[in-house]
Amino acid sequence: MTSSRVRKEVDEALYAFVDRQRPVLLAITEDLSPMLGALDALLSGGKRLRPAFCYWGWRAAGGADGPEILAAAASLELLQASALIHDDVMDGSDTRRGLPSVHRRFEAMHRTEGWPGGAEAFGTGAAILLGDLVLSWCGEMFDTSGLSQDVLAAGRPIYDVMRSEVMCGQYLDMLEQARGTGNVESALRVVKYKSAKYTIERPLHLGAAMAGASQTDLDALSAYGLPLGAAFQLRDDVLGVFGDPAETGKPAGDDLREGKRTVLIALAHQHGSEAQREILNRRLGDPELDLEGVEELRAILTETGALEGCESLIEDFASQAYKALGEAPITDEARAALTDLTVAATARRV
Amino acid sequence: MTSSRVRKEVDEALYAFVDRQRPVLLAITEDLSPMLGALDALLSGGKRLRPAFCYWGWRAAGGADGPEILAAAASLELLQASALIHDDVMDGSDTRRGLPSVHRRFEAMHRTEGWPGGAEAFGTGAAILLGDLVLSWCGEMFDTSGLSQDVLAAGRPIYDVMRSEVMCGQYLDMLEQARGTGNVESALRVVKYKSAKYTIERPLHLGAAMAGASQTDLDALSAYGLPLGAAFQLRDDVLGVFGDPAETGKPAGDDLREGKRTVLIALAHQHGSEAQREILNRRLGDPELDLEGVEELRAILTETGALEGCESLIEDFASQAYKALGEAPITDEARAALTDLTVAATARRV
Repeated sequence: MTSSRVRKEVDEALYAFVDRQRPVLLAITEDLSPMLGALDALLSGGKRLRPAFCYWGWRAAGGADGPEILAAAASLELLQASALIHDDVMDGSDTRRGLPSVHRRFEAMHRTEGWPGGAEAFGTGAAILLGDLVLSWCGEMFDTSGLSQDVLAAGRPIYDVMRSEVMCGQYLDMLEQARGTGNVESALRVVKYKSAKYTIERPLHLGAAMAGASQTDLDALSAYGLPLGAAFQLRDDVLGVFGDPAETGKPAGDDLREGKRTVLIALAHQHGSEAQREILNRRLGDPELDLEGVEELRAILTETGALEGCESLIEDFASQAYKALGEAPITDEARAALTDLTVAATARRV
Repeated sequence: MTSSRVRKEVDEALYAFVDRQRPVLLAITEDLSPMLGALDALLSGGKRLRPAFCYWGWRAAGGADGPEILAAAASLELLQASALIHDDVMDGSDTRRGLPSVHRRFEAMHRTEGWPGGAEAFGTGAAILLGDLVLSWCGEMFDTSGLSQDVLAAGRPIYDVMRSEVMCGQYLDMLEQARGTGNVESALRVVKYKSAKYTIERPLHLGAAMAGASQTDLDALSAYGLPLGAAFQLRDDVLGVFGDPAETGKPAGDDLREGKRTVLIALAHQHGSEAQREILNRRLGDPELDLEGVEELRAILTETGALEGCESLIEDFASQAYKALGEAPITDEARAALTDLTVAATARRV
């Protein structure tokens, strides 16, 4: 199956699941309609990377094609939607995938209706609850994908550890930002748990384990997935600072305003002069940072060699991933599809 | 099995599950220790009502005793812990079960460490993530309870609908507070979804369905569980305003400061004079409300007959529940245990 075909079938499974939930919610009351509307808007975007890796993990281990595995894989997109909704609350982000973030959407609804009391608290509360609802739904969608009970049982331990890892990884990310240590090693640990395992390794494992892969097969997928995941996150970090807002769906410099302690920032800390570090410390995380400030920080990231260092790490990780992919004991069809995904996940789009 | 025995075994299953997760998290890094500490503190309190109803739903339908059903039932306490953690963030509550709420705990940690940046945002973020983690764990604990795949499969649709209902119910609760309609009917709808179904009816259904109950059996449990759940929530609302802080674990009048639009408040709106309604509108939800203000509102709730009306609703619901329990086609042992739980859930402790 081609990448675009996988994407299309994942989308269909995802929308079909939400369409099954819709009448259940609306039977309680039409007042729940804005919750569904917010989810529909969020799911209209996204690259469906995690479902794709899960599907190809299954195929790589010899699993047969079919709508059931695509529905099980698509459930990962609900986990991701939940994480994004809660992430945006935590980061105070205004936009997501080029649209207002969920909490801003409900905040606006509160204002439009002219209700008394705090619009912001209403937006936050609604977003927390929608994220919880969608987090519950990811397990439900997986369980009702149509795969047999035995196959699902083989996948569940991985699904479970993946959820724990991503939530712990996000906590560690927040801890890094709070401590502001700016240490490359800790930043790479966050990348591992928050991104490399969650986005690539565990989705691959989930699919492969359900198709009956051995521990050796899973290890081979880790040797590919972990460096690819790291490369993917570092690419995302670079785009978060230097990327085109039209492509990232976020205003230029939003990651700088949020004060994200990425590997890119850690490298600038490590190699910067005292003056450069002072500017970094002072301006990073300033919610009022204007375009001039963004340019100033971009210049530091370039002049310290942090951008170059990050690109070189991305290259190293990507070539580790390609090498491991070449050696992995998987089907040729899966190898070709994973090669395409590797290119897409690490491509320079600055 | 006696109530206290069920409670003890539910506790043991719950702590054993968390103890299995502990090394997994700490193997990532010791930095995750505060997340576990916050959960341990939260789980040290609580009445374990939902696990008890689930267990007795199982026994009522003829399920055999055993550690597996107790572990599956205990998983509901993790769902509840997650809901409480997120609830406290949404309500800005300082305490829970007599201890600092999770977000306040992490906020204090941020301050103690003297980290730069916002302590409040750190507390909120950590609490959102811990709530997410524990929400994932509730499904994991259920799946790994040791019950057979067939039994679990019979329970999952109910577990799923219960999670959707409680999250939707909480959104409707927030919506009621935002709109401030003060309508008894809408307040009762919130009670139904947020409490009656979530606390009593669905836990009973979950246990009973896994033990092979028919739809008729489930309907009989609804006839008992829904009015009991309504009585339980109305009792909780009364205690939230008139209760002893030593018993509720919350400062006196906290529900009034949060501006909760309970049935009790709706009744006062319905029966109050214009002057009384004006005071209610002005002071309800005032975070600075002092003890004198709390007394003023309590007086209105008493003088309008709202307290009496609420007590009379509790009595009506409770007698509906007792009647349905008497007629339900369940084992005598279960009927006796459920009678005890009914007394405990609706007892006047003001």
